[in-house]
Amino acid sequence: MDFERLKQQMTFIKEIDKIKKIGRQTYLSDASRKENDAEHSWHLAMMVLLLHEYSNVPIDVSRTMAMVLIHDIIEIDAGDTYAYDEKGNQSKRERELKAAERLFHLLPDDQASYVRGLWDEFEEKKTPEAKFANAVDKIQPTMLNDASEGKSWIEHGVHLEQILKRNESTKEGSEELWNFALENYIKPHVGNEILE
Amino acid sequence: MDFERLKQQMTFIKEIDKIKKIGRQTYLSDASRKENDAEHSWHLAMMVLLLHEYSNVPIDVSRTMAMVLIHDIIEIDAGDTYAYDEKGNQSKRERELKAAERLFHLLPDDQASYVRGLWDEFEEKKTPEAKFANAVDKIQPTMLNDASEGKSWIEHGVHLEQILKRNESTKEGSEELWNFALENYIKPHVGNEILE
Repeated sequence: MDFERLKQQMTFIKEIDKIKKIGRQTYLSDASRKENDAEHSWHLAMMVLLLHEYSNVPIDVSRTMAMVLIHDIIEIDAGDTYAYDEKGNQSKRERELKAAERLFHLLPDDQASYVRGLWDEFEEKKTPEAKFANAVDKIQPTMLNDASEGKSWIEHGVHLEQILKRNESTKEGSEELWNFALENYIKPHVGNEILE
Repeated sequence: MDFERLKQQMTFIKEIDKIKKIGRQTYLSDASRKENDAEHSWHLAMMVLLLHEYSNVPIDVSRTMAMVLIHDIIEIDAGDTYAYDEKGNQSKRERELKAAERLFHLLPDDQASYVRGLWDEFEEKKTPEAKFANAVDKIQPTMLNDASEGKSWIEHGVHLEQILKRNESTKEGSEELWNFALENYIKPHVGNEILE
């Protein structure tokens, strides 16, 4: 048995424990606190598992689950950049590339390439799997914002047009899920002192 | 499109947000706070993704990831029962069966059966996938206990023989991972005022 290989893998597995402390801006459904990246990633994997039938085209479910499980690991170093933070989003790509270099290379080379490939695929949003992964990544916070009565939207003074712009490509992953989110999680809050 | 089906699925997806508030007894690696079931389940899915090569026999990785992602959902109703809580473990099975009935049946029938099947398989520990899923479920807390200098073991006065007994079947999933955990995460603390 290759002891060095397993040691590298376990070093990575322990390092990514830190994702549990990377906070997001979205509140839990009961609005008691904000969620973190580990919780968010778990939730997305459950959405992929149970909602993949709504992908515009058939997808490899296993690969898509892996993609959402790893998509935020770079935030351990790069931090979470709020969707509507314009300044933060300018430096985001550079910070994340540096993070990917350090974090993924804790793994043995073959797995570093594998995880990096999954992350690149997610970021490029070109494959059906990446499009669906990106769609659930956008739809999950609209569900939580709806459940928590727009708490995060209100805190950040988010406008409907910002949400629509941010979600321009969400329907490329799933027209049905985007329409559901728009009708059930977004529109009910428009003009209701939440999404002006 | 079957609107009722998607509505049921989204009701479940929202309901399971509650798993983020089900606390475990294990501390994060930096010992700052205890982890919750969503974080734990995400961590196990990452272990399945990256460590499946150490399964005693080849496994279906996708099915095993799904299994660890869903294995603690019943704790939304049943609560987390600490591994070494003898009294709690007597009533555990009954509480969890009741929880499975309510929670999984928020889903459309076909998916309720699918998720229930995965959970039953995990609990029965008979298939290679279930054995490996149970192995990572036991090994992950030993890693975190080691990283947090046995904080949870100390708080609960856990003895080495309890850990060994609890892990009797861990090696059935992966001899290599169990040996690694025993040598690196457990033995170093024996006789060191942690695991007496």
